[in-house]
Amino acid sequence: MLVIKTITELRKWRNSIKGTVGFIPTMGYLHEGHVSLVNLARKDNEHVVVSIFVNPKQFGPGEDYKKYPSDEKHDLELLEKFHVSVAFLPDVEEIYPPDFESKISVTKMSIILEGEKRPGHFDGVATVVAKLFNIIQPNRAYFGQKDAQQVAVIKKMVSDLQFPIAIKVGETIRQKDGLALSSRNTFLNEKDKKESTVIYQSLLLAQNLVNKGVRNSREIMTAMRQLIEKTSGKIDYISIADSQKLNEIENIHGDTLVSLAVYFDKTRLIDNCILKI
Amino acid sequence: MLVIKTITELRKWRNSIKGTVGFIPTMGYLHEGHVSLVNLARKDNEHVVVSIFVNPKQFGPGEDYKKYPSDEKHDLELLEKFHVSVAFLPDVEEIYPPDFESKISVTKMSIILEGEKRPGHFDGVATVVAKLFNIIQPNRAYFGQKDAQQVAVIKKMVSDLQFPIAIKVGETIRQKDGLALSSRNTFLNEKDKKESTVIYQSLLLAQNLVNKGVRNSREIMTAMRQLIEKTSGKIDYISIADSQKLNEIENIHGDTLVSLAVYFDKTRLIDNCILKI
Repeated sequence: MLVIKTITELRKWRNSIKGTVGFIPTMGYLHEGHVSLVNLARKDNEHVVVSIFVNPKQFGPGEDYKKYPSDEKHDLELLEKFHVSVAFLPDVEEIYPPDFESKISVTKMSIILEGEKRPGHFDGVATVVAKLFNIIQPNRAYFGQKDAQQVAVIKKMVSDLQFPIAIKVGETIRQKDGLALSSRNTFLNEKDKKESTVIYQSLLLAQNLVNKGVRNSREIMTAMRQLIEKTSGKIDYISIADSQKLNEIENIHGDTLVSLAVYFDKTRLIDNCILKI
Repeated sequence: MLVIKTITELRKWRNSIKGTVGFIPTMGYLHEGHVSLVNLARKDNEHVVVSIFVNPKQFGPGEDYKKYPSDEKHDLELLEKFHVSVAFLPDVEEIYPPDFESKISVTKMSIILEGEKRPGHFDGVATVVAKLFNIIQPNRAYFGQKDAQQVAVIKKMVSDLQFPIAIKVGETIRQKDGLALSSRNTFLNEKDKKESTVIYQSLLLAQNLVNKGVRNSREIMTAMRQLIEKTSGKIDYISIADSQKLNEIENIHGDTLVSLAVYFDKTRLIDNCILKI
C-alpha cells in the first residue's frame, strides 16, 4: 500500500496506472463500516484509494472538529490488511491553501435536516468531495448509508454537475446491539453506550408500526420520540422524508427515509433506515 | 464534425476516442476571437470540442439573455471549416433539468468588478463551466483574455478544486480600429461602432502614461475617464488591479490588469489589457 500525502504525488500515481479506481473518502478512525466499503470497492475495481482527511469545512463553530478522534497507525494497518492500493492523507493546507475560496452548494437539500442543524455542513462536504474526486478521478466512489443525507447530497451533486463517477452506497454496519458504527461512538461512556441502542430500537419500532399498517408520519415519529425519551438521549430531530429529495412527507410511501439525530451527553449520533412497505 | 445535443451522446463519443481533447466553451454567434481559440486548441490536441450554450445562470434579471444574438447555421459552418471534431449544442433543459440545485462559487473573486455589477454572474459561469468540464473531460480548455475576470475566476476554480485540466488563454482579437471582438458588438449602431473604439484608445492611453513613468492608478483612471467622457459612452467601471487576485491596487506593478466596462446605449462592452512596465 502506498501512503501519499500530496496532490502532486497522487496525480503521478493516478496517471501511472491502468484499470478502474474505487474511492472511499473518510475522516479516519476507521471501523468495520469503512472496511465494508473497502470490500465493496475491491470487488468492483482494480485499485482502491481511501482518503483520510478530517475536513474542517464540514464542522460548525461549536462542533467537535478539534477533538474528532484519530488513530493513524491503526487506520493504516487496517487499510493495508484489506489490500487498499493507496491511502491518501493530505494535510489541511494541501486541501485548503490559505487563498482557497471556492465552494459547492447543493442549495435546497443542504439546508434541511442535518443541514438545518449544522449550517454549512453539506457545503463543506460537497466541496471537499468534489475536490477529492478531481484529484483521485475514481470510476466509482463509496459512501455509507448511515450518512443518508450525505449520500443524497453527493448523488445530487454528481448528477447536477455530471461528475463521471458512479456513486455506490454500502449498508449501515451495526454492533450486535444495533448501534450504528461511527467514529464518534468512542466518545460515549458505558451508560450512554447502552442507552444509545434506543436509536436503532426506535427505527425498528417505526418499521414495526408500518408493518401493522400505520402510514401517518406524525404517529410514527411520536412513538419514536416517546421511546427515546425514556432514556437520557436528547432528540435533535426525527424526520420522515422522501429518500431521494429529502422533503418531509405526511404519509409514508414506498421510498421513505426515517432519519434522526440524538445527543447522548455532548455526543451527537445519527441513524436512519428506509422503511419497507 | 459531429453535432451532439445530449450529454449521453457526448459521453459515448468521449469514451470512444483516444488522444487529448481541447475544449472551448462559447455562447455562440462566433467570431474571429473564437476561431483563434479553436486554432490554439487544434495545435495542442487531437480532438477539439466547442460548446455553444447561452447559459441563463450567468445573466442577471435585467440583462440581455433573451436577446443574446445567435446564428446556429453560421456557427456550425465556421466550426466545420476550422476542423472542430465536435460541436456540443445542449438545450437549456439538458444542462439545467427542473430540479437542478447545485452551485459553484469562487467566493471572493466573484463579487468584485464585473461580479459587483452583475451579481451571480460568475457563480453561473463557474457552475456551467464545471459541468461542461465534467461532461467533456478535456485535457485543455481555452478562454479569451477579453473576459479577463472570467479567466481569473475559472483559473481559481480549477486550482481550488483541482480539476485535471490545463487552462489556456488566447489573446484578445480586435478589429483594425481596436474594438475587441464580441458577439454583443452586433447590437451597436453605426455611430456607437465608431465611438466605442474609445475603449481601446483608453487602454492605449493607460499604457502610454505608464511608458511615461506614471505609476499612480488614480491618475491613469482619471485620464481614461476623461477620454471616454468625450463620447456618448457611459462608464460602468474602470479598474486597475492585480491580474491574478483582481484586488485593486494604488500603484501599478509588473502584473497589473486595467479593465473597464462601458455602455453604448444599452450595449455593455468590456475590455482590458495587462500593462507593460
